[in-house]
Amino acid sequence: MKLSILGCYSATPRTLNNTTSQVLEINNHMFLIDCGEGTQVQLRKHKIKFNRIKHIFISHLHGDHFFGLVGLISTFRLLTRETDLHIYGPKGIKEVVTLQMKLADSWTNYNLYFHELTSKKSELIFDDDKVEVHTIPLNHRVYTNGYLFKEKPGERKLSIGAVENANINVAYYRKLKQGFDVVNEDGVTIKNETVTKPGRKPKSYAFCSDTMYKEDIVPIIKNVDVLYHESTFLEQHAHLAEKTKHATAKQAASIAKQAHVGTLLLGHYSTRYDGLNAFKEEAQAVFEHVELAEDGKTFKF
Amino acid sequence: MKLSILGCYSATPRTLNNTTSQVLEINNHMFLIDCGEGTQVQLRKHKIKFNRIKHIFISHLHGDHFFGLVGLISTFRLLTRETDLHIYGPKGIKEVVTLQMKLADSWTNYNLYFHELTSKKSELIFDDDKVEVHTIPLNHRVYTNGYLFKEKPGERKLSIGAVENANINVAYYRKLKQGFDVVNEDGVTIKNETVTKPGRKPKSYAFCSDTMYKEDIVPIIKNVDVLYHESTFLEQHAHLAEKTKHATAKQAASIAKQAHVGTLLLGHYSTRYDGLNAFKEEAQAVFEHVELAEDGKTFKF
Repeated sequence: MKLSILGCYSATPRTLNNTTSQVLEINNHMFLIDCGEGTQVQLRKHKIKFNRIKHIFISHLHGDHFFGLVGLISTFRLLTRETDLHIYGPKGIKEVVTLQMKLADSWTNYNLYFHELTSKKSELIFDDDKVEVHTIPLNHRVYTNGYLFKEKPGERKLSIGAVENANINVAYYRKLKQGFDVVNEDGVTIKNETVTKPGRKPKSYAFCSDTMYKEDIVPIIKNVDVLYHESTFLEQHAHLAEKTKHATAKQAASIAKQAHVGTLLLGHYSTRYDGLNAFKEEAQAVFEHVELAEDGKTFKF
Repeated sequence: MKLSILGCYSATPRTLNNTTSQVLEINNHMFLIDCGEGTQVQLRKHKIKFNRIKHIFISHLHGDHFFGLVGLISTFRLLTRETDLHIYGPKGIKEVVTLQMKLADSWTNYNLYFHELTSKKSELIFDDDKVEVHTIPLNHRVYTNGYLFKEKPGERKLSIGAVENANINVAYYRKLKQGFDVVNEDGVTIKNETVTKPGRKPKSYAFCSDTMYKEDIVPIIKNVDVLYHESTFLEQHAHLAEKTKHATAKQAASIAKQAHVGTLLLGHYSTRYDGLNAFKEEAQAVFEHVELAEDGKTFKF
């Protein structure tokens, strides 16, 4: 699982600070999460093969999370993309994108599917043999969802000694990896778990931005390997966080602790602070495993 | 008159190539012309005091000329702007901007005025004591206008010897500069032109992008000091220019020659070419005074 941070600052893009966008590579999928203005340039700058993106997840319709979407869609057209593109986001996202295509008289030559979200409960919105994606209802000034990405369990591993001793024809190894019991050369049914071990543990990633402190997301994100939780402010500005429906680093850490996540990744920083270390320090007072998102940084989990 | 090129490439923003946007400072006005994605970052990067912008002129609603507009409007809000902002552009521009503000539930705290254009004839769209702005109807795939910016004549200059000999009270000098006749200390009416000289010659700038070769703009832009004319292609791709309703460097030069402009400024280059010199050479074969727009370059005329 690889996460590339294209932008992790709040409010407005600046010379050195990009607004929210990240690319999650998980089980051979490449997902784009949020798409602030300039995301397509960040994709190029960081040499991401962005034509591989087939699914884009938009948390909410504030500009710093989606003003780059229409430009990216338009660029895919100019690059003569043919692959389907799926957009997940709040109701209204289809109208605003299609209005711009209409005004420009520039329609995509690939299929563009909008999956508009309105539910305030967590929903399964994407599901294939590799990955599933659920919404995480958040509490912000406008309708907002985080997204939970979960790998499907991989194939089981053969316990080499055991499988050989069991006198199983090699032709059945594939079925064993898929979890089935098989009949051996002696006509005896071999229980799968006696000759295989679980595959590698499926990874999971939860993206939660933008939101104020919201404890009821804890059951949804329980035990995820990585939680990206917004921390627009430090505790000294908790009143601003409450007013603008954002979170502090301490609040993000509290959510991480309650959800027993593996790593907490902080982001969506206000640019009012000098540097990011104070965010990490504040969070680590509550929860140990904290990392700082930074524009251009890549994490492998 | 100062022109700052924020972006002058066609189609899509790239790591080193920005799409169309420029700032024209003329007679104490600061006008923004077109606003491709990332314009607000370019404004910051080039340290332009962009809160001084009160008027934005959008040529047409293709993304590479206006996808940065809503972000800039939104950033002005976050910067707690209070000054009125006027947007000039094709019909539809108001709907698309206001839809995005509605979806974000984020309305400006300053007054935002839209001046939607539909005419196919040149119109006077802005006029004060310093500058007037006219549309230049262009021929592109969607409804498009260029813009002609003309300084108003400045104050006349006193002919010092003559004005002293005429025995005029100093209190009347201001009226003389404004072009009025005055009565001198002896009760005699002094004709203005006998004691004053014309002020400095008013400057003018014509922005023409995007358009195919269109001779009937020549009378509108006649004798302008500077003509920015798009040259997306070189003549070797004249067939593409025709197909996509763009112009070649040679065609831009032909327009400049017919209109007797002072300087031709080329821009809106396709990124298919290695370097820009070929554009200049091709144009100079037709018209001598050619300059190349480049991202981040500033011209003083």
